[in-house]
Amino acid sequence: MKLLRYGPAGQELPGLLDAQGRIRALSPLLRDITPELLSDEALNQLRAIDPEKLPLVAGQPRLGAPVAGTRQFIAVGVNYALHAEEASMAVPKEPIVFNKSITCIGGANDDIVIPPGSKGVDWEVELGFVIGKPAYQVPKARALDYVAGYFTANDVSEREWQLQRGGQFVKGKSPPTFGPVGPWLVTRDEVPDPQNLRLNLQVNGITRQDGSTRDMLFGVAWLIEHLTGFFRLEPGDLVITGTPAGVAYGMKPPVYLQPGDVVTLEVEGLGRQTQRVRGS
Amino acid sequence: MKLLRYGPAGQELPGLLDAQGRIRALSPLLRDITPELLSDEALNQLRAIDPEKLPLVAGQPRLGAPVAGTRQFIAVGVNYALHAEEASMAVPKEPIVFNKSITCIGGANDDIVIPPGSKGVDWEVELGFVIGKPAYQVPKARALDYVAGYFTANDVSEREWQLQRGGQFVKGKSPPTFGPVGPWLVTRDEVPDPQNLRLNLQVNGITRQDGSTRDMLFGVAWLIEHLTGFFRLEPGDLVITGTPAGVAYGMKPPVYLQPGDVVTLEVEGLGRQTQRVRGS
Repeated sequence: MKLLRYGPAGQELPGLLDAQGRIRALSPLLRDITPELLSDEALNQLRAIDPEKLPLVAGQPRLGAPVAGTRQFIAVGVNYALHAEEASMAVPKEPIVFNKSITCIGGANDDIVIPPGSKGVDWEVELGFVIGKPAYQVPKARALDYVAGYFTANDVSEREWQLQRGGQFVKGKSPPTFGPVGPWLVTRDEVPDPQNLRLNLQVNGITRQDGSTRDMLFGVAWLIEHLTGFFRLEPGDLVITGTPAGVAYGMKPPVYLQPGDVVTLEVEGLGRQTQRVRGS
Repeated sequence: MKLLRYGPAGQELPGLLDAQGRIRALSPLLRDITPELLSDEALNQLRAIDPEKLPLVAGQPRLGAPVAGTRQFIAVGVNYALHAEEASMAVPKEPIVFNKSITCIGGANDDIVIPPGSKGVDWEVELGFVIGKPAYQVPKARALDYVAGYFTANDVSEREWQLQRGGQFVKGKSPPTFGPVGPWLVTRDEVPDPQNLRLNLQVNGITRQDGSTRDMLFGVAWLIEHLTGFFRLEPGDLVITGTPAGVAYGMKPPVYLQPGDVVTLEVEGLGRQTQRVRGS
């Protein structure tokens, strides 16, 4: 299934994509795509519904983040060797883990707003996943059972704030609009191998990133074992898994995003995002 | 007002402390102490209630964290000069900001559980505050208006995981039980000066920390301006403001917490916490 939320920001309604790629309304059946809806049981109940029997949604509404009520947004840094090289960072022995503020989460095609005082806003196409059930001390072998589904993400980053403002990344990773998520949540049954997905990103039509999740240093299952070895994840939590080479920070000199730029990105099978960049 | 939540973990009911220090039930009036209840308007409505008319709660129930539904738990590192010195860290030019997992939040007197594989669990008494309304780009002069209230916190920390596991602090700050909050939320009208509160902490009755929020490098109003210059805070978000000198990590050699230890801590006027340490 491809679950989604459509409508103006803050007023999204639940829906799903049918076999023809049209939006079908789930609002007759449920209030929203909430963390409770992400358990295997709840998703199986949804799967039993014939999408053809759900009302078609007219037009091309805005898409919000596909899950409401997320309480943690975890990101992994430097998870592709070539990106480590371009960022002049050592290949880490274990994942670098940081938070993005949950208040940066937005829809796949919402504008990216350059925040006041920004020195340089960068892009990062990433594979993301949503946790489906409480997860603590989960061994790698069972880890993928804790994933409700996967999504495309842009881990938008203010580089100076990330790297020069006290050492912890959260300041540069969290301004409003810095977390486009979606367009939909693809349930895990439709992603047989999360470690074999192409990722790509263009700025104004020029390809800047073109990689594969095959090249991750630490794969999804490994990341879940690692993260839950430290703390508990909950249904609805988002984890994004690091970006391949090709970010602005790696260019000499860096060419950061400017008002008017258009960023398009996609993770294979998980849908495409398009963001217009504007000033604040 | 001193707002609180009492009862078993996950089943807490809302209450408040009356003038005699007894718990009064708020459940006839509201379902829980939620982020929506933290606005000035909602708190003023609560203030209009005569506590003597609310049912007395019998016995000495467990107290949970005083706010339900928190979505961000932000912490500030190295915010007292003497603590910077004992931790062999430079006095920072601006606050070091990191996240604690919201899944580490617990009640003031819940056990501290040493997590599997831990090398050294440490204590940190801190002044905390709860955000009452959405806050982004808030100037210092108006910042305290965004605080719903204050609380005592223990920023429990696994030092090896915090400092040696990739550089970002979240891994060591987030295991379950590492965020005792409360016993209650003291609304800001009862805290005329958050920068003049004594903090102290004992381990097994021996005083280890004894400081004052007067010695913070960056005070509450300054922190709110700084944090909201990067990202948006929401009602119910918790911010803890750093610890004074006297942690285990600063001892030579460090004497970390062991099963059976008892930690007691207090921020002046905000109530006392007592935690028993146990293995996992």
